[in-house]
Amino acid sequence: MGKKNKIQVPEPALRRLPWYLAYVKLLQSQGETVVSSTFIAKSIGVDPALVAKDLSYVAISGKTRVGYEVAEMIEVLEEFLGFTRTHKAYIFGVGNLGASLLQDKGLSQYGLEVVGGFDVNPDIVGHELYGVPIYHLDDLAEYRNDDIPIGILTVPVDKAQDVTNRIIEEGGVKAIWNFTPFRIIVPDGVVVQNTSMYAHLAVMFNRMSEQLNNK
Amino acid sequence: MGKKNKIQVPEPALRRLPWYLAYVKLLQSQGETVVSSTFIAKSIGVDPALVAKDLSYVAISGKTRVGYEVAEMIEVLEEFLGFTRTHKAYIFGVGNLGASLLQDKGLSQYGLEVVGGFDVNPDIVGHELYGVPIYHLDDLAEYRNDDIPIGILTVPVDKAQDVTNRIIEEGGVKAIWNFTPFRIIVPDGVVVQNTSMYAHLAVMFNRMSEQLNNK
Repeated sequence: MGKKNKIQVPEPALRRLPWYLAYVKLLQSQGETVVSSTFIAKSIGVDPALVAKDLSYVAISGKTRVGYEVAEMIEVLEEFLGFTRTHKAYIFGVGNLGASLLQDKGLSQYGLEVVGGFDVNPDIVGHELYGVPIYHLDDLAEYRNDDIPIGILTVPVDKAQDVTNRIIEEGGVKAIWNFTPFRIIVPDGVVVQNTSMYAHLAVMFNRMSEQLNNK
Repeated sequence: MGKKNKIQVPEPALRRLPWYLAYVKLLQSQGETVVSSTFIAKSIGVDPALVAKDLSYVAISGKTRVGYEVAEMIEVLEEFLGFTRTHKAYIFGVGNLGASLLQDKGLSQYGLEVVGGFDVNPDIVGHELYGVPIYHLDDLAEYRNDDIPIGILTVPVDKAQDVTNRIIEEGGVKAIWNFTPFRIIVPDGVVVQNTSMYAHLAVMFNRMSEQLNNK
């Protein structure tokens, strides 16, 4: 494939686009057909210039003094964000958090399908959990599949780097969605997305105690 | 309470501190008793100056040419991040994601205890789910409790703002952990922590397609 000069969309913008999508979907459910970027901005409390800038990364054209077609905006944003395609994933570590993610049907609505889990616990290996087969980690190479490019990492912290290495080498995954609080190191070309819920908790606790102290 | 001139810790620093904690806990499990900030930095791929700066927000003193005591660092970080205290929370919306969070025992290890859920679904209201009682949203005022300052928001997008308003007015919560992709608006003094897993998915999908395009 030839090298494309596509502009890299900054991560903060990518994280805001789903806000706009969620909001215009809400508008659609309320019967609205047209919306302006300033109206979106005001409704969700984001700077209007920022909304316009973020939307400029997406191939969607508004009309002056009218705004965007709601239906078109939803279609274009969902497509752009990858929510309309199915991305297959294996989940590594089917403990508390791993099992809870397997149970979350919401992920498939956003384009992620978990097709298998890996663990070392003999109580669950060889069984299905919420309809998803659980394999032994040592059998990973056998289930390697170019159509399953994502590994969701939900192992204990002390296994995070070791399992990461195996996921990449034996499993051939191209992207890791890391839910552990461990900062994994990966080779060039492998995408890592960190989603540490517990780090978010720490931020929330800290802001709460600041509020108390400011009273 | 008097106004304190405490320095606000920047959110990116707060989000990195749990990485250091996770790493030094791993070191402790391997029998290490002392660690330097440069060693931490190298091991997890963060700039050494950044690690030193982040740790300067925490009341922990390293010794020149020796480093930090691992056990002390764990204790101080866990305390600073709020993981050693118990923060009680109600969860609002016990659908897929809400139920899956109820099931995640990991949260309690990080200082969050979910003591009740609210929903409007008659199939679950009045029952327990994973040991947690589920109440009707209309009964929220009755269960209002100053000892339960956190609301976890996992309702559908089109209910996000409305339930947010009720959580604050009827439930009296001081902080909202928002898992919906909707950008909620809250009064001054209420803490919001956004954890949109689906926005993270969008970032990951985008980075994956960039990698493909660069081949």
